[in-house]
Amino acid sequence: MSMNEVANTNPEEVRSYLTGLQARITQAASELDGKAFLVDAWKKPPTEPLQGDGITMILEGGDLFERAGCGFSHVRGPHLPPSATQHRPELSGAPFEAMGVSLVFHPRNPYVPTVHMNVRMIAANAPNGVPVRWFGGGMDLTPYYGFDEDVTHFHGCCKRTLAPFGEDKYPRFKAWCDEYFYLKHRAEQRGVGGIFFDDFSELGAAGSLAMMKAVGDSFLTAYLPIALRRRVTPYGERERAFQLYRRGRYVEFNLVWDRGTHFGLQSGGRTESILLSMPPLVSWSYQNVADSDSPEAELYSRFLVRKDWV
Amino acid sequence: MSMNEVANTNPEEVRSYLTGLQARITQAASELDGKAFLVDAWKKPPTEPLQGDGITMILEGGDLFERAGCGFSHVRGPHLPPSATQHRPELSGAPFEAMGVSLVFHPRNPYVPTVHMNVRMIAANAPNGVPVRWFGGGMDLTPYYGFDEDVTHFHGCCKRTLAPFGEDKYPRFKAWCDEYFYLKHRAEQRGVGGIFFDDFSELGAAGSLAMMKAVGDSFLTAYLPIALRRRVTPYGERERAFQLYRRGRYVEFNLVWDRGTHFGLQSGGRTESILLSMPPLVSWSYQNVADSDSPEAELYSRFLVRKDWV
Repeated sequence: MSMNEVANTNPEEVRSYLTGLQARITQAASELDGKAFLVDAWKKPPTEPLQGDGITMILEGGDLFERAGCGFSHVRGPHLPPSATQHRPELSGAPFEAMGVSLVFHPRNPYVPTVHMNVRMIAANAPNGVPVRWFGGGMDLTPYYGFDEDVTHFHGCCKRTLAPFGEDKYPRFKAWCDEYFYLKHRAEQRGVGGIFFDDFSELGAAGSLAMMKAVGDSFLTAYLPIALRRRVTPYGERERAFQLYRRGRYVEFNLVWDRGTHFGLQSGGRTESILLSMPPLVSWSYQNVADSDSPEAELYSRFLVRKDWV
Repeated sequence: MSMNEVANTNPEEVRSYLTGLQARITQAASELDGKAFLVDAWKKPPTEPLQGDGITMILEGGDLFERAGCGFSHVRGPHLPPSATQHRPELSGAPFEAMGVSLVFHPRNPYVPTVHMNVRMIAANAPNGVPVRWFGGGMDLTPYYGFDEDVTHFHGCCKRTLAPFGEDKYPRFKAWCDEYFYLKHRAEQRGVGGIFFDDFSELGAAGSLAMMKAVGDSFLTAYLPIALRRRVTPYGERERAFQLYRRGRYVEFNLVWDRGTHFGLQSGGRTESILLSMPPLVSWSYQNVADSDSPEAELYSRFLVRKDWV
């Protein structure tokens, strides 16, 4: 990788992009909701091993969003952890920076799906001074009631977003998403998927960063039209009860299986920021099985399964 | 250990004790509530690696208990896992049985604390035919509003229960409980503790079993008087909201830190039985800090801390 190629991947520039992305997304979400996000800028005390700062933004009790969290964080560490340098022995023990934006929006209306999006970059310098960057991210949709046109729109956006970066990207990242957002203890997908990628650098630093930005930039296009057309659907206690029950799966996935959440909580991450993803209100009940031929049963049989949507 | 000493520790007899304990506890809880437990007997299909059966009992939507789960399970495996034989190399790879009763009761009234109790035995035979047993269990209390007399009563019962088995047991198991039921990511105790022990065989098979039984048998005495005196306390939206918020900590502990739950879900345990411990309704909110000098603040400052109660 040439020094030129990484010119626009320097951490300060990527940080600007990420805080700008967070501002654009929360601005649009807030306008649709009618309520502002709370903005909480934080900085880790200098006594902690990982230095870092961030901006946690959250909207609770809105009209469209019952709880919508969107966090930016930027941590710096003296040594890359072994897990990050398995395939990059030349970086073993090098200082690093990791930064990203992560969001989960839990709507109030059960006909509006929950959505998650994340983009992140890790930057380190090899001992010879060559900068190395790798990227991760994606977005995925978790409906309570399934609509083919919503899923097709969401996956279509993901596919169009990735097309300029190679025709292989969407199918690979779509399959990776299905693989990752899977609740093994329920033998169930978390939702209808989307795209997921990790440890990505195969387009070079500049190309990979461009792909990450394209994913971040496409989020509003992928999600807002769905939120807008479903938020007006009337619902009653039945739909609400099903939504609260299904939100339990989100909790189970994030606390048991999601590596970022589980590892973050166990290793001293900022708890309130990590748990932005938790739903506002959740229920559990025993052997909650949907009546056959109901829309709830259809969620399981037609939507929470791995299939090609576009 | 003599063959005589293990006579009453044979798995069929312990199984009888445990199913009887489950029946006694659920009977008493049901009488207080006015609603019956649902009884769900299950058996693992013969295709699964671990054979096993169990009886899951659950009461949902009761007057006293919003969700009360009490499960008996009995699994048999061809080989003890390495984690179980670290200190018992002679049993490496031996066939084993594990059985236990585990309960979590989530009351409706926020003045009634949530409670957890568990007793369990693992049995294996050394290659020379000598039977080996070890035991685990305990009980702990998680109030939403703290009352000294409740905590003192609960810990007093625990202490009196263990006294016949040695004066060291209560202080050791009390400290072990504080250590175990700790949310590292919140720097917070789960509740006011109680007793916890694991991998226990130091009183021999018969003596250790007797201690396990004493713990199981003391549960109703330790908990019911507290439930009875608090269930009539009037409460409003404020107390209910705080209860739902605090229940989130129970979810976080069980899914992130509890070895039985986390490992059970990741290794193919029976999900609906493992998640009997989940509360019926839970909320999350950002930076939910209690007003100073409020009863909610007192829960954190005076009760969710390690201290001697008796």
